[in-house]
Amino acid sequence: MADENQAERQKRKMQKLKEKVDQHIEACDQEKGVMILLTGDGKGKSSSAFGMVVRSLGYGYKVGVVQFIKGEQLSGEELYLRDHCPQVDFYQMGTGFTWDTQDRDADIAAAQTTWKVVEPMLSDPSYHLVIIDELTYMLSYKYLDESMVTKALSNRPPSQSVVVTGRGGGNSLKDIADTVSEIKDIKHAYQSNIKARKGVDY
Amino acid sequence: MADENQAERQKRKMQKLKEKVDQHIEACDQEKGVMILLTGDGKGKSSSAFGMVVRSLGYGYKVGVVQFIKGEQLSGEELYLRDHCPQVDFYQMGTGFTWDTQDRDADIAAAQTTWKVVEPMLSDPSYHLVIIDELTYMLSYKYLDESMVTKALSNRPPSQSVVVTGRGGGNSLKDIADTVSEIKDIKHAYQSNIKARKGVDY
Repeated sequence: MADENQAERQKRKMQKLKEKVDQHIEACDQEKGVMILLTGDGKGKSSSAFGMVVRSLGYGYKVGVVQFIKGEQLSGEELYLRDHCPQVDFYQMGTGFTWDTQDRDADIAAAQTTWKVVEPMLSDPSYHLVIIDELTYMLSYKYLDESMVTKALSNRPPSQSVVVTGRGGGNSLKDIADTVSEIKDIKHAYQSNIKARKGVDY
Repeated sequence: MADENQAERQKRKMQKLKEKVDQHIEACDQEKGVMILLTGDGKGKSSSAFGMVVRSLGYGYKVGVVQFIKGEQLSGEELYLRDHCPQVDFYQMGTGFTWDTQDRDADIAAAQTTWKVVEPMLSDPSYHLVIIDELTYMLSYKYLDESMVTKALSNRPPSQSVVVTGRGGGNSLKDIADTVSEIKDIKHAYQSNIKARKGVDY
């Protein structure tokens, strides 16, 4: 009997909550592309962006992916997109990045060349989704002009969604984003001397 | 001249940092599958899990995906996996979930049936990666026994990685996970009355 009452109470509580959420969903009447910023020091930023690529591909939408940092290591997402998704426009910053080269001038040139690939995507309404992976570092290192970047992001076609990833990113990116998630590192396998795992970390 | 000195200092600083990171990477000598918990109230948990699916598929690894919450809405990742990745073992909790039905008994039965799909994956070393999407709610609602779940997760084959998603999740999941990321909602398009976006949010 007590159990039954509890179940009833729980049911009423959940129904109330559901009504509230349904009302809010009803109120969401703006249909447009969104800008999402995935930041913070935890694992999951780039992988989340690639998950959204899968979502868009599920509906047959056109997707562009530009990665601003390319390590020496090949990655699973790179292999997958190249082998199975020729329809995705995929570009990686070609030359070694500062982390390996420590050559600021070469890095700036590479960042700017890569930006020239992103920029036309951000004015092409045929792209439903554009991923700009690790862009934030280009702003923190001042390899790219912040106002140039935020202007291009803000002026993109209204139907286009864009996902920007990377630690930090500064307030101007946060200001123009519709959704900002900060991915906090609570703990990481790396801290227990576990190697980065193929097919999981890269 | 001042600029040159600054560039030199920056270069030395970065080299030192790189040495430190390289040393730590060297120290990471444990090669094994990892358990990752993606929690928190922000956007990006499930999409991150699906990004890791793409990584594993890039290397041709076997992947299992089990989703504990299925809304009425079809999702892009569901469409994509069904149409393009028949090699992925993909299962969704079949009956409506509590959110729509408010029927606790039916929910418990559905959760337990779904667990019966996950369990064999967690003892099968042929799976390189297993995604258990939205599992945490099954624990918070006490639809599944926590110690049964953590035991199966802990006893999985050493080569297998597993990703668990969902808000909350409790300390015992956190304790056994190698990596825990908490995805914080800094802001969400939803709060500005922007509709969930096809190919991005679902």
